Amino acid sequence: MKVPPELLAFLKEDDDFFITTHINPEPDALGSVLALSSALATLGKRSVLYVRDPVPEMYHFMPSHEKFTSNIPLDSLKQKPIILLDCNTLERAGLKNIRFKSSAVIDHHETEKEFGDIRWIVPQAAATGIMIFYLLKEMGIALSGDIATTLYSAIAIDTGTFRYSNTTAEVLKVGAELIEAGAEPATIATNLYEIWSEKRFRLFILALNTLEIIDDIAIICVTKAMFEKTGTGPNDTEMFVSFPRMMKDVKVSVLFRQDETDFWKVSLRSRGSMNVARIATQFKGGGHRNAAGYQIKADLATAKEKLLKIISQNFPS
Amino acid sequence: MKVPPELLAFLKEDDDFFITTHINPEPDALGSVLALSSALATLGKRSVLYVRDPVPEMYHFMPSHEKFTSNIPLDSLKQKPIILLDCNTLERAGLKNIRFKSSAVIDHHETEKEFGDIRWIVPQAAATGIMIFYLLKEMGIALSGDIATTLYSAIAIDTGTFRYSNTTAEVLKVGAELIEAGAEPATIATNLYEIWSEKRFRLFILALNTLEIIDDIAIICVTKAMFEKTGTGPNDTEMFVSFPRMMKDVKVSVLFRQDETDFWKVSLRSRGSMNVARIATQFKGGGHRNAAGYQIKADLATAKEKLLKIISQNFPS
Repeated sequence: MKVPPELLAFLKEDDDFFITTHINPEPDALGSVLALSSALATLGKRSVLYVRDPVPEMYHFMPSHEKFTSNIPLDSLKQKPIILLDCNTLERAGLKNIRFKSSAVIDHHETEKEFGDIRWIVPQAAATGIMIFYLLKEMGIALSGDIATTLYSAIAIDTGTFRYSNTTAEVLKVGAELIEAGAEPATIATNLYEIWSEKRFRLFILALNTLEIIDDIAIICVTKAMFEKTGTGPNDTEMFVSFPRMMKDVKVSVLFRQDETDFWKVSLRSRGSMNVARIATQFKGGGHRNAAGYQIKADLATAKEKLLKIISQNFPS
Repeated sequence: MKVPPELLAFLKEDDDFFITTHINPEPDALGSVLALSSALATLGKRSVLYVRDPVPEMYHFMPSHEKFTSNIPLDSLKQKPIILLDCNTLERAGLKNIRFKSSAVIDHHETEKEFGDIRWIVPQAAATGIMIFYLLKEMGIALSGDIATTLYSAIAIDTGTFRYSNTTAEVLKVGAELIEAGAEPATIATNLYEIWSEKRFRLFILALNTLEIIDDIAIICVTKAMFEKTGTGPNDTEMFVSFPRMMKDVKVSVLFRQDETDFWKVSLRSRGSMNVARIATQFKGGGHRNAAGYQIKADLATAKEKLLKIISQNFPS
């Protein structure tokens, strides 16, 4: 993977950066920012790490996560160069109508807009963390144990610990190098997948009990009543939607999460060539081919009906 | 990993082998046998592949699985050298009171008995498949796509796709080499984890609904009535016991599976230093530190009570 020389020049030129990533951050977003910030620090460069939504508690295992702030007068940052990681528009970072001194974007998502003085976009990269790995190499930064842990977490989450189709020989080689630098695969996997609270697990069971399968579309729901019954909240539904996809005949797995009465957050997961981003965009949402989402104002029955209709229009069986 | 020269000599000496593995075979057992057999075939050597229990349907994605037989007059095999993979006693392979021409054992499980003229036992190997990988290299065998797929499947299942504590940099490097030789990580992961039938998933939900948590021991049950209700069978409970371990405070996850009225198969999963093999052996079962099992004749309430008592005696909190 070739790092653009102008990106290296961009990082060389300044000593004080503003680094940010997308809203609702997950380990690829967080790990990429933390690793780059740590690398810049070894060169004596400062950085402010901003994320609009506070780092979810479940990701507090990531070293130095406390360096993130969600609460900063953005006006004070306009004089700094901004680096946008794992997303490619200011909107995705929750920033609007701000102009920065200069800007660089490092991302593995397809882009729609042309934000950024310097743009390094590699859609075939399994994770932004992989790109940061190569960037650090190019910068001559030695991988500390903490950098290795944050980058390994980034890659682990975005490949489902090497289960998704973005897993290549190169990804495993990078993983091996990060382990040699101090990343602990089992500790990281436990932190990513086995730190559910009992109440979250109880919520999960309630959600599974709502399972309906219609034309190979599996649907589960989480209602506000379930949150109340189990003492949980919206963050606790993370990953629920993946489970019905374990069934071999399920083409799309859907989670309806009730955020307000008649207001639902809908998560879609598919496999193979079934592009659920196409579905989500028709509801003004977005995402990737196999993982997308949107929000809808409707009662549950109507919301389901509309989704099934759009799916059958887009993917006639 | 150093391959014993006497093993290489053993494989060189004969042209017709009997290769077998443990009862209830899983992908490490199956993949190791298939890869070795395929390697021997490229050298013009024949092998009979025996497994006492037929290859479960869910593992039929493994190339050449149909070469296994469960039905062969064992008397006819006495003249052949036997190779025992992924286990180290004839009993574990379901073979009793048979003497073979000669014998070799390749395994990563701790041994209790000293079976085998040639014994290559490496408990720190993540999978027997890793040992076969090095053996094939030493034999100068080029990795075909099929060999790569069977060995990658072996390693994937025994490391939980690189999630367990046996995952090292070396394991990932071997994985990378197998991908380069033709293994497809996403296809294999889908085949291992996402090929559940709907009725199996329905059984899973019924099982989760029985969840009890007592002193950080999570217990779920599958009864004969549940099998009947969902149209499933005992093989369908594979992996169920792993799920309650997603909860961070759960020390041991237990599945009671009803095989007959008042006769239960009990599966135990733990994490870290909690050795459930110590528990299982007290019920005349066995296993590894974090995965063990036993059978018990009792009504469910008594069976649970006995287990909780033994756990609290062995691991006083």
